[in-house]
Amino acid sequence: MFFYLLRKFSKSKVLTLDTIGENVKKAEYAVRGDILKKAHEIVESIAKGKKYPFKTLTPCNIGNPQFLGQKPLTWVRQGLSLVVNPRLLDYPELPSYYPPDIIDRSKHLLTRIQGGIGAYSDSQGLLVVRESVAKYIEMRDGIGPSDPADIFTTNGASPSIDIALTVAISSAQDGVMIPIPQYPLYNALITIKKGQAIGYYMDSSDGYWSLNIEEMQRSVDLAKKNHIKPRALVVINPGNPTGQVLSEENMQQIVKFCEINNLVILADEVYQDNVYIPTKKFTSFRKVISQMGTKTELFSFQSLSKGFYGECGIRGGYMEILNIDNQVKDQISKLASIMLCSSTLGQVGIELVLNPPNEQMPSFERYEIEKNEILSALKRKALLMYELLNTMDNITCNYVEGAMYAMPCVSMSKKAIDEARKIGVTADKFYVMKALEETGIILVPGSGFGQKPGTFHFRITVLTPEISFRDLLLSFKKFNDNFHKQYRD
Amino acid sequence: MFFYLLRKFSKSKVLTLDTIGENVKKAEYAVRGDILKKAHEIVESIAKGKKYPFKTLTPCNIGNPQFLGQKPLTWVRQGLSLVVNPRLLDYPELPSYYPPDIIDRSKHLLTRIQGGIGAYSDSQGLLVVRESVAKYIEMRDGIGPSDPADIFTTNGASPSIDIALTVAISSAQDGVMIPIPQYPLYNALITIKKGQAIGYYMDSSDGYWSLNIEEMQRSVDLAKKNHIKPRALVVINPGNPTGQVLSEENMQQIVKFCEINNLVILADEVYQDNVYIPTKKFTSFRKVISQMGTKTELFSFQSLSKGFYGECGIRGGYMEILNIDNQVKDQISKLASIMLCSSTLGQVGIELVLNPPNEQMPSFERYEIEKNEILSALKRKALLMYELLNTMDNITCNYVEGAMYAMPCVSMSKKAIDEARKIGVTADKFYVMKALEETGIILVPGSGFGQKPGTFHFRITVLTPEISFRDLLLSFKKFNDNFHKQYRD
Repeated sequence: MFFYLLRKFSKSKVLTLDTIGENVKKAEYAVRGDILKKAHEIVESIAKGKKYPFKTLTPCNIGNPQFLGQKPLTWVRQGLSLVVNPRLLDYPELPSYYPPDIIDRSKHLLTRIQGGIGAYSDSQGLLVVRESVAKYIEMRDGIGPSDPADIFTTNGASPSIDIALTVAISSAQDGVMIPIPQYPLYNALITIKKGQAIGYYMDSSDGYWSLNIEEMQRSVDLAKKNHIKPRALVVINPGNPTGQVLSEENMQQIVKFCEINNLVILADEVYQDNVYIPTKKFTSFRKVISQMGTKTELFSFQSLSKGFYGECGIRGGYMEILNIDNQVKDQISKLASIMLCSSTLGQVGIELVLNPPNEQMPSFERYEIEKNEILSALKRKALLMYELLNTMDNITCNYVEGAMYAMPCVSMSKKAIDEARKIGVTADKFYVMKALEETGIILVPGSGFGQKPGTFHFRITVLTPEISFRDLLLSFKKFNDNFHKQYRD
Repeated sequence: MFFYLLRKFSKSKVLTLDTIGENVKKAEYAVRGDILKKAHEIVESIAKGKKYPFKTLTPCNIGNPQFLGQKPLTWVRQGLSLVVNPRLLDYPELPSYYPPDIIDRSKHLLTRIQGGIGAYSDSQGLLVVRESVAKYIEMRDGIGPSDPADIFTTNGASPSIDIALTVAISSAQDGVMIPIPQYPLYNALITIKKGQAIGYYMDSSDGYWSLNIEEMQRSVDLAKKNHIKPRALVVINPGNPTGQVLSEENMQQIVKFCEINNLVILADEVYQDNVYIPTKKFTSFRKVISQMGTKTELFSFQSLSKGFYGECGIRGGYMEILNIDNQVKDQISKLASIMLCSSTLGQVGIELVLNPPNEQMPSFERYEIEKNEILSALKRKALLMYELLNTMDNITCNYVEGAMYAMPCVSMSKKAIDEARKIGVTADKFYVMKALEETGIILVPGSGFGQKPGTFHFRITVLTPEISFRDLLLSFKKFNDNFHKQYRD
């Protein structure tokens, strides 16, 4: 009774939309926003018997390959199962199912992991894992040495990016340059950390997305005019959501731009194994910076969630720092230690994919077959997507050179734009909402990533199983062409 | 050459100790601070042949049970190995090694995890896991219902605490009350988020650590006088580093205090399964709030890393929210979604320990034996630690009622304090440093957690294997008694 009265006379809730921080409210993360809410509603309606022109939803909104049927690599899962339950190693039948190389590797890893995978590792990650990461980086770039002491493992790449931004943003005037369109994690984290996002528009004019230095300089100059201090530049390569693979020339221009403007580079390279165009190849910013001989400060990010491995749920990732001041590195180590350590299983997963079986090992053949099946299917789908999207009314789509997405541009009629405005949404969201209701395909509207004013885009993944991918695109074509007929000016 | 000149004429590094944020620099995390650095140096010296009065270091600084030899639960590891590599389920010999209940459970979990553990789950966590968490909470408290929609899984409890503090701190004037001594994660995160930590001293006067409402009111009044707006209260129960188990009466007073002062409760309950005193039992803040009939806003945290399971490296944890405004909950969901999802293996681990085998199941007996072995050893060690510490010169130690630590108080002579000051450290750090050099035991100085001015403490874990625990304490006693002889005034 006493407490009832107490509450009765006390004020309303402590935490309300009016009392929590603007930084939290303003942060946007469109990949899992309103459209996904609508999708959940549709699932519930279907369960209740409501009819739609489709049987199930097709999520093309998130780079979540195994959710859509991509198979995990046998090598990775065998290794993980052995380090998770080392008693399996004692079962006499094990060698009839697991090849000797993965048994040996798991035993080796276990000898290097004090306390096993149930113990906290060093905050930067297990040394045995960071050694393999460093070796991989040296091999990939053909440039050594990479120092395990400069590598920090995290739960996917996102917490690495969080740490880099925490260090880069020292005040509300500090700005971080982000590409537009961008992966919305960047904008969201910069907002939460009360920094300033400085957008630079990517150039999509010649059929490829690229970074235009003049546009970047315009953007940085404008920021300075507005009393924002640019401190860092985010580059996503291969691009998300844009799918481009940057040329070395373009990367050299970017490094030069960062040198002139005193910017740290945050290189999001999580799609480094996802390149589909034979004439393009992935080059790391580490390599370009090293070859140019500059001392550009670099954070580069890699993840277990992408590539051909696609182990999103296991949460493995890392960052490598380059040319970072030693005292700042100590601060980064401290930040990493606050969260204790990243998933040891994520770390082991990273070790297994970056140090795969070689030609002499019994697991090699199977590993290569699985890897090539995944990559060649992605490649075929990327090409098919590019070709089919460009046959659709009012749609132009650049080459999908890498990553897992296309980001086509949709010309919208005045009528469509007005119709969208009537219900209080942007035309791209309106379009994506209609596509969801009519086809069950979940897309992300371009406004979630940012786009040039007056242009409209959406992001679509290339992850739908090949067997139904063409039909999916054809059903989408039907929707799109009808949409434009319906809203013709 | 061009780039060489470019760098030559450009300014120094972008990121230096002078240019990164004060919030980052000020954040302290003593559990992995200077002492651990010193320990690493000693390991390197030993490797180089330097002699110390001990052969290896004994880490008593971190609650990392498996690192010190605690065995994982068979039930958990068998289950994890099957969801990691479901092909094991097809091996005809499996039933000779794995009991049918864990095979059934794993199959059940796999049917509920679309795409398997390699797919991103819902950002809040897999529904099948949150359902088990909710059922566990209802059973634990004897109060229903707990709603899976109010549960958020994270990588250990730390990211849950991070989210709660992000929501609680809306401006630089917002304060969060934290116990002193506290687990340093709180102070570190509040500093990074540019909020104000409002310390309240725990009461250790009668042999138990407890929360004194008058002290808490003094602390909150002082904060208000200093123009700080108290918004939330952190309570750690069972206590870290203090090991207390709060009585229901004390908890009711705390809830009443929060009602009167408009505070949200952040209840760190990660040691809920670590209670060693027969007369004490863990009660959740959810239960106390529900029984009092108040609408106090609550975030409560639980982890896979502690209890008898101790799976630190797997990174499982969750928070349950209670009485939180729906719009604020939407913001919390958004924050959770930015990091995509927590480790699916951490989530499965949580499901397996909160929904363990029951009496009718074949795994029950083994599970109970393993669980009781771990808990009874912890209990014996907690008692032994309490007794032996209290035989040491100048040391008084409260009962270790729960959690994994003792936080004894050390009376320091003026001579010891002066000696410490000469080398620029506090007396507790000086003492802990000496203990490390002379015994190889790694402790955490009390200043890392906070302590009443003029008092000195250290934290020591109860996790050293039982076979060597008494010897460890006796070697520590020798060090301690010598230390006080050496620095007698």
